[in-house]
Amino acid sequence: MEEVDHLAHERRTANFDVDAMKVVWAGSRRAFEIADRVGRLVASDPEFRKDNRTSLGRKDLFTNTLRKAAHAWKRINELSLTEEEASMFRFFVDEPAYVDLHWGMFIPAIKGQGTDEQQKKWLSMAYKMQIIGCYAQTELGHGSNVQGLETTSTYDPKSDEFVIHSPTLTSSKWWPGGLGKVSTHAVVYARLITDGKDYGVHGFIVQLRSLDDHSPLPGITIGDIGTKFGNGAYNTMDNGVLRFDHVRIPRDQMLMRLSQVTREGKCIQSDVPRQLVYGTMVFVRQAIVSDASKALSKAVCIAARYSAIRRQFGSQDGGPEIQVLDYKTQQNRLFPLLASAYAFRFVGEWLKWLYRDVTQRLQAGDFATLPEVHACTAGLKSLTTSVTADGIEECRKLCGGHGYLCSSGLPELFAVYVPACTYEGDNIVLLLQVARFLMKTVSQLGSGKKPTGTAAYIGKAEYLLQCRCNVQRAEDWLNPSVILEAFEARALRLAVNCAENISKASNAEEGFTDLSADLLEAAVAHCELIIVSKFIAKVQQEMEGHGVKEQLQALCNIYALSLLHNHLGDFLATSSINSKQAALANEQLRSLYSQVRPNVVALVDAFNYTDHYLSSVLGRYDGNVYPKLYEEAWKDPLNESVIPDGYHEYIRPLLRQQLRVSRL
Amino acid sequence: MEEVDHLAHERRTANFDVDAMKVVWAGSRRAFEIADRVGRLVASDPEFRKDNRTSLGRKDLFTNTLRKAAHAWKRINELSLTEEEASMFRFFVDEPAYVDLHWGMFIPAIKGQGTDEQQKKWLSMAYKMQIIGCYAQTELGHGSNVQGLETTSTYDPKSDEFVIHSPTLTSSKWWPGGLGKVSTHAVVYARLITDGKDYGVHGFIVQLRSLDDHSPLPGITIGDIGTKFGNGAYNTMDNGVLRFDHVRIPRDQMLMRLSQVTREGKCIQSDVPRQLVYGTMVFVRQAIVSDASKALSKAVCIAARYSAIRRQFGSQDGGPEIQVLDYKTQQNRLFPLLASAYAFRFVGEWLKWLYRDVTQRLQAGDFATLPEVHACTAGLKSLTTSVTADGIEECRKLCGGHGYLCSSGLPELFAVYVPACTYEGDNIVLLLQVARFLMKTVSQLGSGKKPTGTAAYIGKAEYLLQCRCNVQRAEDWLNPSVILEAFEARALRLAVNCAENISKASNAEEGFTDLSADLLEAAVAHCELIIVSKFIAKVQQEMEGHGVKEQLQALCNIYALSLLHNHLGDFLATSSINSKQAALANEQLRSLYSQVRPNVVALVDAFNYTDHYLSSVLGRYDGNVYPKLYEEAWKDPLNESVIPDGYHEYIRPLLRQQLRVSRL
Repeated sequence: MEEVDHLAHERRTANFDVDAMKVVWAGSRRAFEIADRVGRLVASDPEFRKDNRTSLGRKDLFTNTLRKAAHAWKRINELSLTEEEASMFRFFVDEPAYVDLHWGMFIPAIKGQGTDEQQKKWLSMAYKMQIIGCYAQTELGHGSNVQGLETTSTYDPKSDEFVIHSPTLTSSKWWPGGLGKVSTHAVVYARLITDGKDYGVHGFIVQLRSLDDHSPLPGITIGDIGTKFGNGAYNTMDNGVLRFDHVRIPRDQMLMRLSQVTREGKCIQSDVPRQLVYGTMVFVRQAIVSDASKALSKAVCIAARYSAIRRQFGSQDGGPEIQVLDYKTQQNRLFPLLASAYAFRFVGEWLKWLYRDVTQRLQAGDFATLPEVHACTAGLKSLTTSVTADGIEECRKLCGGHGYLCSSGLPELFAVYVPACTYEGDNIVLLLQVARFLMKTVSQLGSGKKPTGTAAYIGKAEYLLQCRCNVQRAEDWLNPSVILEAFEARALRLAVNCAENISKASNAEEGFTDLSADLLEAAVAHCELIIVSKFIAKVQQEMEGHGVKEQLQALCNIYALSLLHNHLGDFLATSSINSKQAALANEQLRSLYSQVRPNVVALVDAFNYTDHYLSSVLGRYDGNVYPKLYEEAWKDPLNESVIPDGYHEYIRPLLRQQLRVSRL
Repeated sequence: MEEVDHLAHERRTANFDVDAMKVVWAGSRRAFEIADRVGRLVASDPEFRKDNRTSLGRKDLFTNTLRKAAHAWKRINELSLTEEEASMFRFFVDEPAYVDLHWGMFIPAIKGQGTDEQQKKWLSMAYKMQIIGCYAQTELGHGSNVQGLETTSTYDPKSDEFVIHSPTLTSSKWWPGGLGKVSTHAVVYARLITDGKDYGVHGFIVQLRSLDDHSPLPGITIGDIGTKFGNGAYNTMDNGVLRFDHVRIPRDQMLMRLSQVTREGKCIQSDVPRQLVYGTMVFVRQAIVSDASKALSKAVCIAARYSAIRRQFGSQDGGPEIQVLDYKTQQNRLFPLLASAYAFRFVGEWLKWLYRDVTQRLQAGDFATLPEVHACTAGLKSLTTSVTADGIEECRKLCGGHGYLCSSGLPELFAVYVPACTYEGDNIVLLLQVARFLMKTVSQLGSGKKPTGTAAYIGKAEYLLQCRCNVQRAEDWLNPSVILEAFEARALRLAVNCAENISKASNAEEGFTDLSADLLEAAVAHCELIIVSKFIAKVQQEMEGHGVKEQLQALCNIYALSLLHNHLGDFLATSSINSKQAALANEQLRSLYSQVRPNVVALVDAFNYTDHYLSSVLGRYDGNVYPKLYEEAWKDPLNESVIPDGYHEYIRPLLRQQLRVSRL
């Protein structure tokens, strides 16, 4: 029974080279091989099992995570993994932990904002985990608006120290991961005050706990902020609260790469350009986009495999029912998400290139592309994380009732993913930044300044304002330049409409505020255009492997045409297409679904995820769903005894009472 | 500090009579008074506290629920509550438990399908809770397709018994609430087999557990199916798995109101019309719609109050930041949900009338309205539950990072609500039933058969196919008949388009299948029209209280115009409106937002929810959010000790090791 592949028939119908697709998905043969090897290493190590995670209480769950983190560190050292491999290793351990913040925020903050001397001192300890750090920025009353933070760091020239203080309840640091129970140090963001003047928010390295016995240092109050959404999920993480009561740190623990405070208490800007910090921001955002494609593909993989196993309705005279994957309504919800997973993967890959490009430019003192890069990465972070969060939940619903069981893996995946919509910039705030960039770009159109990069199309405004879509048959929608032009026209026309409406307002700022809901739509149109165009560019590259290119072409078209359908109001209201052409796009979409259907299971196999990584009974590679669901149920703590705790106190007396129920 | 009302300024700006609105929301003064009194009774009883629910492990959580259920039953009897009050009492206890299925499914199933004799015997025990029952229909491999169930009930004339059996693993009963650990009895759905012939699925009363010691009876295997989505949430419920190994029950435990099996084993239809079961279905669905308005209004209440407390950005020279409720982007997401909560409340009220109407008709043997009523209730169940589930999650996101904390109440509300999209008919399957009804109604247009009730507009097809929206100024969109006609034109034209496209297919069934994604959109349009029209009808009634009608008018318009914007593609593609008119609708929507803004906190106060019922730190009536969030955090089990469990094993060794990190 165990060795049967219940999905073998689905795998046989695929008409492309799955192994070649695995390489395309991974980005390169080398990347594939590392991911494959490291993924198997983690999956085969029983210390990393996670199937019990959703039934553990908070304390056990947390200790369990500490154990895994320590074991992972041991294995990473034993195996002498490179930094890239180590990070991949932690990714496959797949459990939010203090190490994520230590490696992902604390170390990069010191790298980006510390002087060479500071880097030398602190990074050498951090790399060996002789100290563990977190990133203490957000406060109880202050999130997205970093400039509104209240924590103060006041320079005391008498002792050559900063005094870190939490002046109000709302200034309590709140949310930093790894803070609550583990970190020994933090990069703390606080208002720099020297000589009575407020110099705004800067970063400071603050020791929080004793390296001898882990107790919080004097003046420091720390705790965990409590249970968060979902079973398992982020409850493995000690997101924390932190209050300072006049805590003193040496002056040289202010991160001084960009600004310095002298012995006398003077605040001086260094000659390092402030724009350099944007490099880090681009790096973080490309990582978030890359994570989005991983999370979405995981959900899609589970839903696709289960939809091929699950059968419902349509049986005539006792034969097997129809696979739910064959229902057009299921396809119409699932296939665009499959296409989105691939789309996000490729735009993420392109963002890696963009990061390298912008880094080189910044080092050469070329800041010209920064506004465009900033808008592009802000928008892509926002769009991909929102679609992924909603997409995971949609995949859960596509699995029907069983998707609601933790053993499906989907509830935890949703709960653990969804903060991505809020952290590193709230998604709505980010889209408004994109809109601001678009309005500025449009307003400069007459000035001779030529938009570049992902905004280059705005330079074709004159053409795009009057062009007409010439689709006449459904197949015309397979032409990439037709798709591209429709998306460009829609994005440009929405932006120009907004700009015109803003210009009618008595002042531009008020106009921007009043129209912000419309502006969000223009921003989304801009971002979707970027993703569509990068997907098209990817598909136009040379590609090895039988049928690989054809499958990606179909997915690219599904991605674009399903977006077109979902935002039909935009396309029609801007006359970017007409309603006849919309109907043809729909017709083409249906035929693309039929084309992709026999390849769907193979297309999710190409993600190369182990059963350990998926941790979903519904998404098992072998499709052996029902026996395993049944087996899994009996592991619940409630099944430890046949008669439940509480029977004698709360059930038996009820059944035994001789009630005279008068009114019921 | 505690007694300050941080939302007092918001309450002062309201320009309508909140107490009068509370009565409108409740449905009548009497309904308001019952809900108000019972709500306070539950809230003031410390036995019903639920603030610790999300941090309890599965076993403790479950025992805690058993305790509450027993205490609720005790109080209900002590207070001699009526059936209506008792049901309200359980509603405010607000914790899924076996009693929900006992009262909500087991008893109604016997009422609907049992003979008078059976009702007398079983209901008298059930009403006193001398037996506890559940509803065992769904199986591991079979959900929506009830006719595909595999459990068998084979009549044995030798012993005058049925033999209930689970022939396969996939035939295991799976999901029934209250089954896993508590129920003594179940209504079990199984294929009736007698004399070698399969008569399809029927209901049987089966005793599951001993009334002496609660152990499962011979041949019966029962357990809990394991952890489900979310903290607390449905993990308070023992959804169960059940297998039968040739379990014998007396013949008279088949529910025989509609079909009977005689002593000799002949299966006979009774003369009771089968249509009567639809009455129960209408009842269950109106209850689900009513629950949707409660769940959505709860989420909206939390998000609205917190949005008035939370401030972010926009501070000039150190003054307070702007309330996030003042941001147009926040309003554009929140206000349509507030309007939807009211819309669902009123359509739910109308469904109560529809239930009474259809019950009277059925008793009089008039089945003519059944197809229309069936489609209408199926569609409204689907639409309101989908919008509510998504709306709760949107409200959670509107609360930013803090919405992710369990103390916000929103994670649990989402997790506990979302199964409503799947149970009692998967939402997509239900919409397809609506579509089928629409296609049939359209196809009969020429036949002289006049559509009635919520489908009456289809009878105006000729007019609606050629009418033109004559909106010329934004204010024209405030005219109810303009809105109604636009929604009617959109719904009718989408349905007619689908019917025409189906007629082009080689056979109608294939056409229906191929176009099912389009058909879903036509079904949604039909359902939205129903809700809009019932909201308009409600607002046109006489209403007491200063400003009440004006507020509801504004909400009704927000509801309609935000739908119009979200489905703009439909309206434009069918030429129901043009793009100029779409822009005017948007303009009007913005001005409605400004009109409603000063009333928003009062509009959620009108739901009259206690802080106990909301169980959200963010949604507190007094708005005292930050001190209470801070207080709540320290209750987490992780904060029981300063040094976390696992420090000595997993953190200290890490910090103390003298690593020679070679490659990192």
